[in-house]
Amino acid sequence: MHALKVTRAEDFPEWYQAVVREADLAEASPTRGSMIIKAWGMGIWERVQGELDRRIKETGHDNYYFPLLIPLSFFAKEAQHVEGFAKEMAVVTHHRLKQIDGELKPDPEAELAEPLIIRPTSETIIGDAFSRWIKSYRDLPLKLNQWANVMRWEMRTRLFLRTSEFLWQEGHTAHVDEADAMEETFLALELYRALAEDFLAIPVVVGEKPENERFPGAVRTYSIEAMMQDGKALQAGTSHYLGTNFAEAQNIRFQDKEGGQSLAHTTSWGMTTRMIGAAVMVHGDDDGMRTPPAAAPRQIVIVPMLRGKPEDGELKDYCAALAAELNKQTVFASPLRAHVDMKDARPADKRWDWVRRGAPIICEIGPRDAAGGQVTFLKRNALREGEKVKSHTLARADFTAQAAALLETMQAEMFNEAKVRLDTNIRADFKSFAELEKYYGTDDEGGEFKGWARIQWSRPTGAALDDVGNRLKALKLTIRNAPRAQPSSFGACIFTGAPAVEEILIARAY
Amino acid sequence: MHALKVTRAEDFPEWYQAVVREADLAEASPTRGSMIIKAWGMGIWERVQGELDRRIKETGHDNYYFPLLIPLSFFAKEAQHVEGFAKEMAVVTHHRLKQIDGELKPDPEAELAEPLIIRPTSETIIGDAFSRWIKSYRDLPLKLNQWANVMRWEMRTRLFLRTSEFLWQEGHTAHVDEADAMEETFLALELYRALAEDFLAIPVVVGEKPENERFPGAVRTYSIEAMMQDGKALQAGTSHYLGTNFAEAQNIRFQDKEGGQSLAHTTSWGMTTRMIGAAVMVHGDDDGMRTPPAAAPRQIVIVPMLRGKPEDGELKDYCAALAAELNKQTVFASPLRAHVDMKDARPADKRWDWVRRGAPIICEIGPRDAAGGQVTFLKRNALREGEKVKSHTLARADFTAQAAALLETMQAEMFNEAKVRLDTNIRADFKSFAELEKYYGTDDEGGEFKGWARIQWSRPTGAALDDVGNRLKALKLTIRNAPRAQPSSFGACIFTGAPAVEEILIARAY
Repeated sequence: MHALKVTRAEDFPEWYQAVVREADLAEASPTRGSMIIKAWGMGIWERVQGELDRRIKETGHDNYYFPLLIPLSFFAKEAQHVEGFAKEMAVVTHHRLKQIDGELKPDPEAELAEPLIIRPTSETIIGDAFSRWIKSYRDLPLKLNQWANVMRWEMRTRLFLRTSEFLWQEGHTAHVDEADAMEETFLALELYRALAEDFLAIPVVVGEKPENERFPGAVRTYSIEAMMQDGKALQAGTSHYLGTNFAEAQNIRFQDKEGGQSLAHTTSWGMTTRMIGAAVMVHGDDDGMRTPPAAAPRQIVIVPMLRGKPEDGELKDYCAALAAELNKQTVFASPLRAHVDMKDARPADKRWDWVRRGAPIICEIGPRDAAGGQVTFLKRNALREGEKVKSHTLARADFTAQAAALLETMQAEMFNEAKVRLDTNIRADFKSFAELEKYYGTDDEGGEFKGWARIQWSRPTGAALDDVGNRLKALKLTIRNAPRAQPSSFGACIFTGAPAVEEILIARAY
Repeated sequence: MHALKVTRAEDFPEWYQAVVREADLAEASPTRGSMIIKAWGMGIWERVQGELDRRIKETGHDNYYFPLLIPLSFFAKEAQHVEGFAKEMAVVTHHRLKQIDGELKPDPEAELAEPLIIRPTSETIIGDAFSRWIKSYRDLPLKLNQWANVMRWEMRTRLFLRTSEFLWQEGHTAHVDEADAMEETFLALELYRALAEDFLAIPVVVGEKPENERFPGAVRTYSIEAMMQDGKALQAGTSHYLGTNFAEAQNIRFQDKEGGQSLAHTTSWGMTTRMIGAAVMVHGDDDGMRTPPAAAPRQIVIVPMLRGKPEDGELKDYCAALAAELNKQTVFASPLRAHVDMKDARPADKRWDWVRRGAPIICEIGPRDAAGGQVTFLKRNALREGEKVKSHTLARADFTAQAAALLETMQAEMFNEAKVRLDTNIRADFKSFAELEKYYGTDDEGGEFKGWARIQWSRPTGAALDDVGNRLKALKLTIRNAPRAQPSSFGACIFTGAPAVEEILIARAY
């Protein structure tokens, strides 16, 4: 018996929904397309945010905050950009409600002269500020970041993975030339790789997106791609070199060292609450979420086995002292986070609540533990032996001495488990499109675990690229990225037979 | 010569705008009514946020995130609430743009069946979740908090003090009874008092708002009120006991211990980016902002007096080593924040930039300091002696040994300075309304420093209260709050002559 009613093998999408719900991560809201992020989910996001924010600041970026609403005319300036976003924008048209015929309605007299758009992303309004702030090469590079909510109207939503409103950070920078802007583009990409791998224990492949998957208005788009437990890919962060496209559209010019006027080269890059969905699909098991210890809001949860008897007092003291001792320690270069769950509920229910949330270490302390000076605990990343839940017991002094190292080992184990899955499920042996078709074409539902393919291609553009896209689409496949690590020589393009110039990853994707 | 072109005495509102602009705090945005919060302003807000968040969590609240957009029908449920907010709501009516006659417009085919409101506050959507989550007394208290952007359409805006969009935290809790909910209401109020006083060095008066100033839908509203340097009051945080008003409107019921169904008692409380405006008007001087050391993004800024000469290298090393040594220290129970300003600009310009931003300690290190092993610095809270900027010099070892204590002393000095201003400018000697009228009625502009009045009243309600409000309004005065500390006996009401029951503060206000 597992803690969830549905297993990954039975129905992966259903299992995902169950984990999100049962692990106190999020739920659907009455606002269509938006979600309520609940305590454990928000706690994970806050840890991601804190860690990424520290790294963003350490690399020379300051946080700013720009308006939620962007005048419609701003979007008209960059043609590709508006084409990419116009279909999914929430539009504010009125600034007042009024009782009309007994019903509350937008007041026709309070219609805005120019509609305002809820930001789907902030290039346009930040670029406008750049054009005012940047006068000289001395003002460059200008490197800023914003933590914000954004909105892209979605018809089919899935919690964390695709919702109309989501939370993210968006970095925006301006540079004197392409070289400096490209260095920044890769810096951001490396921030994302390191955060995903070191902090969320999610191994990723870093690479460049094909032309047809670029951010609207970008010259080059890079991504990190992660493999979910159903073999699908999930794009987990993107970094864009925007060239001078936005600078031209928004007049971001500076006096260069020679005294002439030059266009700035800009970048933008973002990572979102989608990462929580990725963590669920990479680490979750049939008992719920397994939260990577570095990102867990509570790393060690202590459940006292209270019985409503006089000896409860001693037990509570024992647990409180244990938590206090643990909370003095350092793990992952931060104070360890231990917590005694004193909620008014049955100990067994509390245990399973923490199992479903994926608290990394769950201690169950009974009177015998307290009397004997020991700690009985579960390791969430290796909860069971066979079908049976496996509990461990250590002398209290040993447990407190080993706790930090244990958490760090668990983090490494979770990363390695996911890394092996990624590495062993990228097939690089497809010699022809027919082979690819045979492999991916056999499951109409797309529900079977197929992994990814690494193939060589001639990097076609325009209509030829559209043709490649369509052939892949028939197999429910997409091009994920061209990994940064490339071989030194190539064979033939799997699509066109022409000499290949690049290896790319293809996969089913979220 | 001061660092700003306008002094407080000459024109306080103009001075305020100048500080906000020159201290890199914020600027107006092209989105009417919204602001761009810049690096130093955002840095202060992040410090406030981090500190308040820690205290909110320590007192048992979890962070959640609820949707930005709230269905219009949710507002119709609580009559007073919608009446209070309907006049200032941003309304989303479409979810797509379209090219129509060559112009980008809201697509008529993408009109929403029910308009969505950008949250002005979240009682309605959070109450809806409460009604689903709360089943039994065991689920109570339910204590949560959200950090978010909110929008209340404003016609006349002033950066930080009144903008259409602002950032805040909103606490929302549900309780079994009034006693428990009132305890929470006061807990939040105390969080705000402590944050304002201990962290931002802003002394406040804690008290209850009069009936006509209550939050729409609240049974009782409490505030902290701070005195600005022009003698006006600024409401710096509010906490509301909502009784069962929202529970009734939204059906937040629970099975009580006796097995019956009871309505939950709810609270809500918020503090906003307005606090940054308060800090400017409490601490700023004619040279710009003076940032309270606890909240300063950079507490010690080191400006190397570089001359583009070979000895610059040594100077840079000296400054870097000094910063590294300082950054190992702890101040205000957090790591000290020292920073070397290596920007490509003239040292004198950099000095004045930091003076205007109000970095607490500004070190100016020249080759002689480096050679002599000393530190020359300015204390921003006591920048000048007479008209002259006063610089201090200490041996490097003494400076690093004293730095943390110096910052803590400066914080205390800033609080005391503001506390004396508050305490000595509340007049409690008005015996009649005529005296009040004589004192406040003599400046038509309302620009003269008048301070506050503490008077006794009979706490009229309804029409009698409206009358009081109108008499005060004619003097540009408002009732701020009834301070929690009250005398044991009262004289006559200054408005009605009836026996007084309470002392209240009246003041001009932002």
